Amino acid sequence: MTMKITFEKKVLSKNDRIAAEVRRHLTTRGIVAVNLIGSPGSGKTSLVERTAAWCHGRFATAALTGDQATRHDADRIERAGIPAIQITTGNECHLNAQRILDCVSRDELWDIELLLIENVGNLICPAAYDLGEAAKVALLSVPEGDDKPLKYPGLFQRADLMVISKIDLLGSSDFDADRAERNAREIAPHIEVVRLSCRTGEGLGRWTGWLTTRLAQTAPLTARRD
Amino acid sequence: MTMKITFEKKVLSKNDRIAAEVRRHLTTRGIVAVNLIGSPGSGKTSLVERTAAWCHGRFATAALTGDQATRHDADRIERAGIPAIQITTGNECHLNAQRILDCVSRDELWDIELLLIENVGNLICPAAYDLGEAAKVALLSVPEGDDKPLKYPGLFQRADLMVISKIDLLGSSDFDADRAERNAREIAPHIEVVRLSCRTGEGLGRWTGWLTTRLAQTAPLTARRD
Repeated sequence: MTMKITFEKKVLSKNDRIAAEVRRHLTTRGIVAVNLIGSPGSGKTSLVERTAAWCHGRFATAALTGDQATRHDADRIERAGIPAIQITTGNECHLNAQRILDCVSRDELWDIELLLIENVGNLICPAAYDLGEAAKVALLSVPEGDDKPLKYPGLFQRADLMVISKIDLLGSSDFDADRAERNAREIAPHIEVVRLSCRTGEGLGRWTGWLTTRLAQTAPLTARRD
Repeated sequence: MTMKITFEKKVLSKNDRIAAEVRRHLTTRGIVAVNLIGSPGSGKTSLVERTAAWCHGRFATAALTGDQATRHDADRIERAGIPAIQITTGNECHLNAQRILDCVSRDELWDIELLLIENVGNLICPAAYDLGEAAKVALLSVPEGDDKPLKYPGLFQRADLMVISKIDLLGSSDFDADRAERNAREIAPHIEVVRLSCRTGEGLGRWTGWLTTRLAQTAPLTARRD
């Protein structure tokens, strides 16, 4: 067990060093990166698709999307109108900073202002890995149940924002959005919360408002490639 | 990377040795253990509750339930009428064989015929850890999307049965149950499939039928404590 803990500490501290490098890359170029974390099927790709459409003509945006296999998500996101790079992780259950560093100098990610990173579908492991992002967003979809912040506290404690997704399904289960917020704030008192549905569009304005604030807080661009 | 792979191989091969010990414990006592794996909110606890009710008067049953935090699930399962032991994993994203071995000699698990193991909510990491179970069951809930077997192949390739849960929500999204089955069989040709809803009860008979077959295949009991 000690061997395991030592090993994990080593992996995480190496990851932190690489994440700092990614963060320098991104902030120097004025890019705001948002790390979207949630269970499989919590609506991460749908949110990226919706955000891509909203960004059109507003902010130059690209996406990185992690999955164990397939490039379904990158294909969906590109159809929504922004460049997307698929990161296939194989057996790995999370993205790490090296995966992002391998991408940040690619053409698709050069002249952008917003980078949407869609993590591997997993409510646990991705939370521990800093990717050099400006903010972590935890997605919790209505069908998953309002108790999840208490059962998987690690992610919600590290997240800047909790998105309650699929609110068009409220009423189809005993999910109580107020209780979900209370549960999240019990373990993460300062977490912000946005409720939305990518299907109906309800609440998307609050999400894009949050993004706009984040983008406005970014320092002016100091280095662009040309 | 090599260090990581070597470390993981070491952890998994140690786990396999302990899993073999768990399997000996269970088979000697005629206990069928089923390892339920699925995303957070895929309906694992609901399925255990429903199964507990069905087992009443048929099979002596107990449950082990893994979560990063809280004992909500064990409390729910005990209210459904069977003994339940909560395994709190902290930062860990899966159960391992040692966790099960630590429990198999406890009173709650002695004179039983069926052991329902509810893994930590995670579609990835738990798949790699043999717990000494007789069968692995992969839960895929309708709101998660029918593409998940292709995107998270590891679990479905190792599972004996895929349970498509929450079929009362069919129609609320573009989930196509036939397509989900085709996707699963594309990467796991021999996987069995049961579609059910714990909310309406639809399909539960097929699940309990599958369990009954499993229980009937078990060798007669050769060792009981008294």
